[in-house]
Amino acid sequence: MKKLYYLLIFIPISFLSKDVFHLSPILSFIFTALAIVPLAGLMGEATEELSVYCGSRLGGFLNATFGNATELILAFFSLKAGLLEVVKSSLAGSIIGNILLVLGASMFLGGTKYKVQKFSRNSINFSLSMLTFAIIGVMIPAFFTDNISIKDANPINYESLSVMIAVIMLLIYLSSLYFSFFTHKDIFGTEHEALTGKWSMKKSIIVLVLATIFVAFESELLVSSIEPMTEQLHLSKLFVGLIILPIIGNAAEHSTAIVTALKNKMDIAVEIAIGSSLQIILFVTPVLVLLSLFFTPMSLIFNKYEMISLVLAAIIANKVAYDGESNWLEGLQLISVYVILAVACFIVG
Amino acid sequence: MKKLYYLLIFIPISFLSKDVFHLSPILSFIFTALAIVPLAGLMGEATEELSVYCGSRLGGFLNATFGNATELILAFFSLKAGLLEVVKSSLAGSIIGNILLVLGASMFLGGTKYKVQKFSRNSINFSLSMLTFAIIGVMIPAFFTDNISIKDANPINYESLSVMIAVIMLLIYLSSLYFSFFTHKDIFGTEHEALTGKWSMKKSIIVLVLATIFVAFESELLVSSIEPMTEQLHLSKLFVGLIILPIIGNAAEHSTAIVTALKNKMDIAVEIAIGSSLQIILFVTPVLVLLSLFFTPMSLIFNKYEMISLVLAAIIANKVAYDGESNWLEGLQLISVYVILAVACFIVG
Amino acid sequence: MKKLYYLLIFIPISFLSKDVFHLSPILSFIFTALAIVPLAGLMGEATEELSVYCGSRLGGFLNATFGNATELILAFFSLKAGLLEVVKSSLAGSIIGNILLVLGASMFLGGTKYKVQKFSRNSINFSLSMLTFAIIGVMIPAFFTDNISIKDANPINYESLSVMIAVIMLLIYLSSLYFSFFTHKDIFGTEHEALTGKWSMKKSIIVLVLATIFVAFESELLVSSIEPMTEQLHLSKLFVGLIILPIIGNAAEHSTAIVTALKNKMDIAVEIAIGSSLQIILFVTPVLVLLSLFFTPMSLIFNKYEMISLVLAAIIANKVAYDGESNWLEGLQLISVYVILAVACFIVG
Repeated sequence: MKKLYYLLIFIPISFLSKDVFHLSPILSFIFTALAIVPLAGLMGEATEELSVYCGSRLGGFLNATFGNATELILAFFSLKAGLLEVVKSSLAGSIIGNILLVLGASMFLGGTKYKVQKFSRNSINFSLSMLTFAIIGVMIPAFFTDNISIKDANPINYESLSVMIAVIMLLIYLSSLYFSFFTHKDIFGTEHEALTGKWSMKKSIIVLVLATIFVAFESELLVSSIEPMTEQLHLSKLFVGLIILPIIGNAAEHSTAIVTALKNKMDIAVEIAIGSSLQIILFVTPVLVLLSLFFTPMSLIFNKYEMISLVLAAIIANKVAYDGESNWLEGLQLISVYVILAVACFIVG
Repeated sequence: MKKLYYLLIFIPISFLSKDVFHLSPILSFIFTALAIVPLAGLMGEATEELSVYCGSRLGGFLNATFGNATELILAFFSLKAGLLEVVKSSLAGSIIGNILLVLGASMFLGGTKYKVQKFSRNSINFSLSMLTFAIIGVMIPAFFTDNISIKDANPINYESLSVMIAVIMLLIYLSSLYFSFFTHKDIFGTEHEALTGKWSMKKSIIVLVLATIFVAFESELLVSSIEPMTEQLHLSKLFVGLIILPIIGNAAEHSTAIVTALKNKMDIAVEIAIGSSLQIILFVTPVLVLLSLFFTPMSLIFNKYEMISLVLAAIIANKVAYDGESNWLEGLQLISVYVILAVACFIVG
Repeated sequence: MKKLYYLLIFIPISFLSKDVFHLSPILSFIFTALAIVPLAGLMGEATEELSVYCGSRLGGFLNATFGNATELILAFFSLKAGLLEVVKSSLAGSIIGNILLVLGASMFLGGTKYKVQKFSRNSINFSLSMLTFAIIGVMIPAFFTDNISIKDANPINYESLSVMIAVIMLLIYLSSLYFSFFTHKDIFGTEHEALTGKWSMKKSIIVLVLATIFVAFESELLVSSIEPMTEQLHLSKLFVGLIILPIIGNAAEHSTAIVTALKNKMDIAVEIAIGSSLQIILFVTPVLVLLSLFFTPMSLIFNKYEMISLVLAAIIANKVAYDGESNWLEGLQLISVYVILAVACFIVG
C-alpha cells in the first residue's frame, strides 16, 4: 500500500498541467488519473481507521457506505458536466471491473501460489443473491424500453420510474445493512484483520477530509479533460466510461484485493470485489439518480453494451464464486471475459 | 381462512351491480373480483378435502390438477371473449405473482418471526428445475420470432408450433406427476399437514361443484367488465392481465401461503407458490392453447414484457430458493422486484 | 459399438452414388452420412487406443483434442465450400446436440434402468463453469452487434475481434488441459475404464490415418450435396447446420454415451456429452476461425437462433447436471427442449 503513495506527486503536476505546463489533454488526463489513485487509497484507509473509533456497527456502516466515495465524487462531477452517458457507463464499468478484473486478478494471482483458495460460502451467497437482485432491479427500465420508445415516449415517465427504483434500491441497501449488522450478523463470520488502529481518530478525520477535498478537485479536472482527450484519441465515451474511468476509481481496491489474495485471505479479497460492486449498484447509482434531479435528470436506462456487460458479469460471478472456492483457471476466465468485453467496446463503441 | 368467507356477500352484490344497482364498470369489476376470492378459496379447500377420500395418488393428482381451476376458468372466459392478449398476460402474471409476491410475502412475513426458515432442498430443486425447463419451453416460439416476422409470416406455422409445445408440456406434466407419485415419490418427503378430513365426501363434492359454477358465472361477469373498466381508468390490458387479474386469482393461495409461513411450515408455503406456477405453465397454459383452437387460436408467443417478467422471476426464484433456506431480506427482494415490474408495466403498458 | 461398423458398407455406395448410380442428392446425402457415422466411431476408438501408448498426459491431450476430429474435418470442407453460415450453425448445433440430445438420451435411458444415477460433482462443475465461460466468450461479438450494424459497419473490425477471441479461447483451452493434467489432476478422479489396449500401437495408427482419410473424402462429398439437397427438400441451411449435420457428426458419441449410461457409468456419459461440447467451443471453433483466414474469413457472429440455442443449452445443462445426479425425467426435459428447438428451427428457418 505504501508504494502507492509515491503517486501523490501527481497532485501538483496535474494541477499545473494545463495552465502552467500547457500539456496535451491526454497527458493531463493521465497525470490527473495517477493523482486520484493514491487519494482513493488514502480515503479508503482513513475510512477504515476512523471506523475503529465508531464501534463495529457504525464503523461497518461507514466502511460500507464511504468505500466507494471516489467513484461517487467522480460520477458527481461527470453528472454536473452533463456527461450522463459517461456516468452510466462508468457505473456499469465499475461493477464489471470489480467482478471480472479485481476478482479475476485476485483469484489468478492467489491461485498461482495456493492450489485452492477458500472463502465463506454463506457470506458469498448472500452477496451474490443481493448482486443478482440489484442488477435485475436496475435493468428493468432498460428491458421495458427500447431505442425507439425512449425517443418518442414521454421521458418524464422513465424519470419517475428511475426515481422509484432508486428509492427501492436505497431501501434494500439500508435493509441489507440492518440485516448484516443487526438481525443476521452471525452469518458474516469472517472479521477483517486488524489492519487498522494505527492512526489516531484526529489523524483519520483530517486525512479523510483532506483526501476527499483533493479527490473532488482532481475529479473535476479529470472530467474536464475527458471531452478533449476522447476527441484527440478518437475514443468513444462508452470505452472511456466502461473501461478507463473504473480502472482509475478501482485501482486502490485492486491492489488491496490482490495483496490479500496473495496472503490467502480470499474472504477479504472476494468481499472487496463483490462488496464494492454491491455498493455501486445499491448505493452510488441510486444516490446519483436522485442527485441528478438537481441538474439534468439521469434515467436508469442502461444502453445495450452496459446491460450485456452487467448480465455477463453477474452470471460469471455466480458461476465462479458460489462454491466458496477458487483457483487460477477461474481467475483466468474472469480476466479473459473482461479483456474480450474491453476489446469489443473499443471496436464497437 | 374463515374470515375470507365473509367476502361471499359480494356474490349477490356483483350479480346485481350492473343491471340493478347501475354501478360504474370500475365498482362492478371490484365487487366481482371480491366475490371470486372466497370462491377460489372454497374450490381449493373442497379439492383438498375431496382428495382425502381418493387415496394419496389420485388425491395428489386432483390437488395438483385442480389447484388452479380459478385461473383456468377465468382465462377460459377471457379466451371466449377474444381477449387473447389478456389471457397470455394473466398466465405470465400468475407465474410472477406466485413466485415474487406470494413467495416473497411468505418469506418476508415468516422471516420477521423466525430468523431462518428451512424447506426441503430436494423437493425445491426438483420444482425449480421443472420451472426453468418449462419457462424455457414456452418462450422458444417468442425467441424465434420477432414483431416484424409475426406480422408478415404465415401465422399458421406459429400456431402449429404452439400446439406442439402445448402437447409436449402436457406430456412433461403427466410425466412429472408419474415421477412424483410413482417412480420417485420418496424424495417428496414432506406430507401436507392434516388440514383436511373435516368435511364428508358428499359435502366436499357439493361445495366443489357449487363453487365452480359460481366462479364460472363471476368470471364471465369479470371478463365482461374488463374492457369498459380499462377504458375508463386508462389502464393498459398488459397491466390488467399481468398484475390485476392474477392478484384476484391468487388471493386465496396468497393468504394460505402466508398463514403457513407464519407457522414456520415453509415447505408448504414454498410448494404453494412454486407448485402453483408450475401448474400454470405446464397444465393451464397448454390446456388453454388447445382449447383456443375451438375459438380463435392462441399462439404461445409471449410479448416482450411477459418474457422479461418470466425470465426474471425464474432467475430470482432459483437464486433465492435453491439453498432450502429463507429470511426476511430475501422476501423483501422478491417483493421489490414485483413492485418494480408492476410500476414499469403501469408506466410503459 | 461393433454393429455400427456394418455401416462401413456405405463408403463404396456413397462414392458411387452420384456418378455411377445417378442417385438423387437426397439419397446421396443420406448414404454419405451413413458412411461417416462408423468412420467417426473408428477415429474415436483409434484415438483412444493410441492414447494408451502415450502415457496418461499426452494420451489425455490426444483424446481431448482429436475427439471431435470428424466435426473439424466436416466443418473444414464446409468452410472451403464457402458455406460459412452452415459451419457456424453446425458448431452451435453440435454443442446443443451433445448437451440436449446425447446427455438427455443418456439420462433418460439410464434413468429407466437406475432410479438415480450419480456422477462426480467436482468434475461436472469444472466442466459447466468452463462451458458457461466459453459460451459467453464466443457470443460477445454477436451481443455487441446487430443485424443492421453487421451490414453497414466495417466488417474488418468484427474479423479482428473474432480472431482475438479465437486466440483467447485457444489459450484457455490449453490452460484447461494444463489444469486438468498438471496442476489440478486430482479433482478429476474418475478414470476411464480400460476399454482400450486391445489394439497394437501400429494398428491404432493405421486405423486412425485410414479413417481420417476416408472421413475427409466423405465429408467433401457430403458438403457438395448439401446445396442440391436443401433446394430439393426446401430445407433451410439453418436447419441442416443446426440439426442434421451435428446428428451425423455426433452419432458415434451418441451411441457410446448411451451404452455407458446403461452400464450406470454416468461419469463417462456426462464427460462425453459436456466434454465434447467444450472441445467444440474451445478448440474446434477457434481453429476454424483461424483456418478461415486462408479462405473467406469467418466471423464469430452467431445468428439469433444459434445464440438462443446456445444460451438455453447452457442454462439447462447447468440446471440439470450441477448436483451430480440424474433421473429419467431430467433426461426427458433435455430431449423435449431439443425437439422444440428443432421444430422451431424447421418452421422458422
